Amino acid sequence: MSKYLTKRSEDYSKWYNELVVKADLAENSGVRGMMVIKPYGYSIWEKMQAEIDKMFKDTGHENAYFPLLIPKSYFSKEASHVDGFAKECAVVTHYRLKNSEDGKEIVVDENAKLEEELIIRPTSETIIWDSYRKWIQSYRDLPLLINQWANVLRWEMRTRLFLRTSEFLWQEGHTAHATKIEAIEEAEKMQGVYADFAENFMAMPVIKGIKTESERFAGAIETFAIEALMQDGKALQAGTSHFLGQNFAKAFDVKFTTKEGKQEYVWATSWGVSTRLMGALVMTHSDDKGLVIPPKLAPIQLVIVPIYKSEEQLNTISEKVDKMILELKAKGISVKYDNRTTYKPGWKFAEYELKGVPLRIGIGPRDIENNTFELVRRDTLTKQIVKQEELIDTVANLLVEIQDNLFNKALAFRDELITEVDSFEEFKEVLENKGGFISAHWDGTSETEEEIKNKTKTTIRCIPLNVKKEEGKCIISGKKSPFRVLFAKAY
Amino acid sequence: MSKYLTKRSEDYSKWYNELVVKADLAENSGVRGMMVIKPYGYSIWEKMQAEIDKMFKDTGHENAYFPLLIPKSYFSKEASHVDGFAKECAVVTHYRLKNSEDGKEIVVDENAKLEEELIIRPTSETIIWDSYRKWIQSYRDLPLLINQWANVLRWEMRTRLFLRTSEFLWQEGHTAHATKIEAIEEAEKMQGVYADFAENFMAMPVIKGIKTESERFAGAIETFAIEALMQDGKALQAGTSHFLGQNFAKAFDVKFTTKEGKQEYVWATSWGVSTRLMGALVMTHSDDKGLVIPPKLAPIQLVIVPIYKSEEQLNTISEKVDKMILELKAKGISVKYDNRTTYKPGWKFAEYELKGVPLRIGIGPRDIENNTFELVRRDTLTKQIVKQEELIDTVANLLVEIQDNLFNKALAFRDELITEVDSFEEFKEVLENKGGFISAHWDGTSETEEEIKNKTKTTIRCIPLNVKKEEGKCIISGKKSPFRVLFAKAY
Repeated sequence: MSKYLTKRSEDYSKWYNELVVKADLAENSGVRGMMVIKPYGYSIWEKMQAEIDKMFKDTGHENAYFPLLIPKSYFSKEASHVDGFAKECAVVTHYRLKNSEDGKEIVVDENAKLEEELIIRPTSETIIWDSYRKWIQSYRDLPLLINQWANVLRWEMRTRLFLRTSEFLWQEGHTAHATKIEAIEEAEKMQGVYADFAENFMAMPVIKGIKTESERFAGAIETFAIEALMQDGKALQAGTSHFLGQNFAKAFDVKFTTKEGKQEYVWATSWGVSTRLMGALVMTHSDDKGLVIPPKLAPIQLVIVPIYKSEEQLNTISEKVDKMILELKAKGISVKYDNRTTYKPGWKFAEYELKGVPLRIGIGPRDIENNTFELVRRDTLTKQIVKQEELIDTVANLLVEIQDNLFNKALAFRDELITEVDSFEEFKEVLENKGGFISAHWDGTSETEEEIKNKTKTTIRCIPLNVKKEEGKCIISGKKSPFRVLFAKAY
Repeated sequence: MSKYLTKRSEDYSKWYNELVVKADLAENSGVRGMMVIKPYGYSIWEKMQAEIDKMFKDTGHENAYFPLLIPKSYFSKEASHVDGFAKECAVVTHYRLKNSEDGKEIVVDENAKLEEELIIRPTSETIIWDSYRKWIQSYRDLPLLINQWANVLRWEMRTRLFLRTSEFLWQEGHTAHATKIEAIEEAEKMQGVYADFAENFMAMPVIKGIKTESERFAGAIETFAIEALMQDGKALQAGTSHFLGQNFAKAFDVKFTTKEGKQEYVWATSWGVSTRLMGALVMTHSDDKGLVIPPKLAPIQLVIVPIYKSEEQLNTISEKVDKMILELKAKGISVKYDNRTTYKPGWKFAEYELKGVPLRIGIGPRDIENNTFELVRRDTLTKQIVKQEELIDTVANLLVEIQDNLFNKALAFRDELITEVDSFEEFKEVLENKGGFISAHWDGTSETEEEIKNKTKTTIRCIPLNVKKEEGKCIISGKKSPFRVLFAKAY
């Protein structure tokens, strides 16, 4: 496959689609809207999973696993939840196939029709709260802090690799608490965990905020979100954490006995991030030459490519490299030596640029003689000559520097693209010519929000947690507004 | 819930079911045949996964992820595979629900019927080989060594927690090779990896062998299996690895160009282990007091329970224990200090016996004075007094000793229950009075195998890899037989 990529400036969307496929992250499968996550893409996801999972455990959560299929009737129990979720989903109606009468194909066995249809989980609140009813009796059973790593399915008409697929992989936390305040604190804490992961591992700055009513999770009282900005000026919701009140406890009759012996409904949260983060990672840092992966999530942090003419030269180089690799690995650096004889060095250089490996060394016979190596950074594409004895430290330092540089670059880009406007005219002009987040006054009504959405295709991404009080007037209705909110077009 | 367990000698099956639920490993969900894996059970599964995944990566495999849903037509492409798998499975026929006309419930939207039904994967050979066609062109693309961690679903009429559930978690390896010999070697290698894991981590001795034709995986040329023996004398197939020949390559038209420029079909293997291993773990070691978990897979290896009368005493104990914990953790020992004030020490002792924690220390004020602790082993239930300065080493040594003891005990039990018989009368007598593996001559025909199965409910578990040549006569037909095979009743 050609390594040529459409330029971002030509067609950002096409660039993204090509890059995901050419860099071997994922591809479409033979099943509409469902992707195959290829080994290289999956290895990045595994690194994300490992870090996130550790953060969950460090904050007292445990993993569990609940059924894939949910009885249809469970969805009807929470009124707003069913409207949001039970519609576009895969329905299992039968449990057997049989040979057709002519024996030429297999067909659905109509005798094996389920009494009640089963839904492939679009999210698991219902089936989990059905279990929690059995698990929670007393205040001693609370809090219950559980997470699940799972696949979920939402039937999507327009899909894009990682960003919107019918089936996707995610984690969903579901916690139960004795008090409202504790549940709210949990929801806020997990928003913080997500922001920490996004910024410190993905090197992706995010804005923490709360969602407006119309953008809330179906069944939530409050949705806390982290919002990132992609290079095309569109926002991407990277993670959400919901305070669910007592909605699911009431729907599934989950009560507990308090210390004082009273019966009360349990308070709930749920929170999740998904393989969508892979799309966010790609779109935050990558360039026209391919992926740029932050060192903390790079499956390969340093690649070493031998440059040789004879087998003897290759042997000399390999001997040297084998020793270097041991030292690098001892320092916790993940290194790959690509000594395949079936590909040329130039081909390999382009390959690892496409795949976003943070650092690259090419080693030829003269480098061995001089005891110096040429080191190339993927983020800046700059080269430097390093003495052999300084190699390990230089690599370790550069990996930190690249991680920081990627974050700072993305932060500067994002901050440059937050624009305050005070009229709808200005709003439209900024949207048209600049994009990004638009910070504007809004009267707090869903009607105005809807009107802006219809006229501009922007939504309120969030009310930032650190919003400052500022009296102003709604850019549409002119009514009083106590603070600005962030609008943007979004993925 | 009462900690009382039915005794194994009374009703082994009931003991198992009660234990799995009472030890918080898993429970049935509201969906027929599907289980909820509870946090404690899942934490053991996570430890299994981590070790197995490491073994796969050490042998050059990478993880990937393929779609949950498979178009019905894919199954028809490999003739023997469809007979084995495509029948008892969950069929997705629709992709939308809607409100009923009276608005009281949600119903399937008949306008959202799929053109082609989708099957929830019972195993993924078909969808994976559909992708491999695109991934494999040249010998340079081989071998392709891929594994997937996933949920699968096979509609089961009679289910039991972990041992047989409609949905279960597993890993499925799918590899592609340029030559027949390389594929066979891969299948054998993975059987070896499974045996290594079973014996060295689960402390569960296994017999490596090959399956007879009638017990083979649907679509395989040869199935390599590991077979374990449970405490009730029944065998359990703990893992299988299949040499698939070119069956799937031909069904999905996967060819490659050889070094010599010829077009050839690719050779395949697939291999898997599942959450069934959790059932095997429970049934291999546990006793009438509860679980017994081998230290290498125990989420908690040592539990420390304070014994106190006053808050002051508890504080003194906690101060001491906090220091001990730091030292234990530094040694890589996973330790839990259960200082809950809501439960008594006796209750806690019973709880950790039920949960199979390998080592337990109870610490009272006098222990603090004397600088000695009472250490109790879960496997033997023996107690010993340990001086404080010897604690860390003693714990570390005991964990190794317990792991070895569990394996040796299970091995002695298993070996005692392999009986050679030379007549069908003897066969039936051993089966009736002793159980276990019965080693007998068999004429190699499916007819005889079927006859024995019908008469005794035993199957040929495997032809052991280390079988010794020994001329004999089939216990049923009297025909010549070159070696003995292993029969048993099985889970």
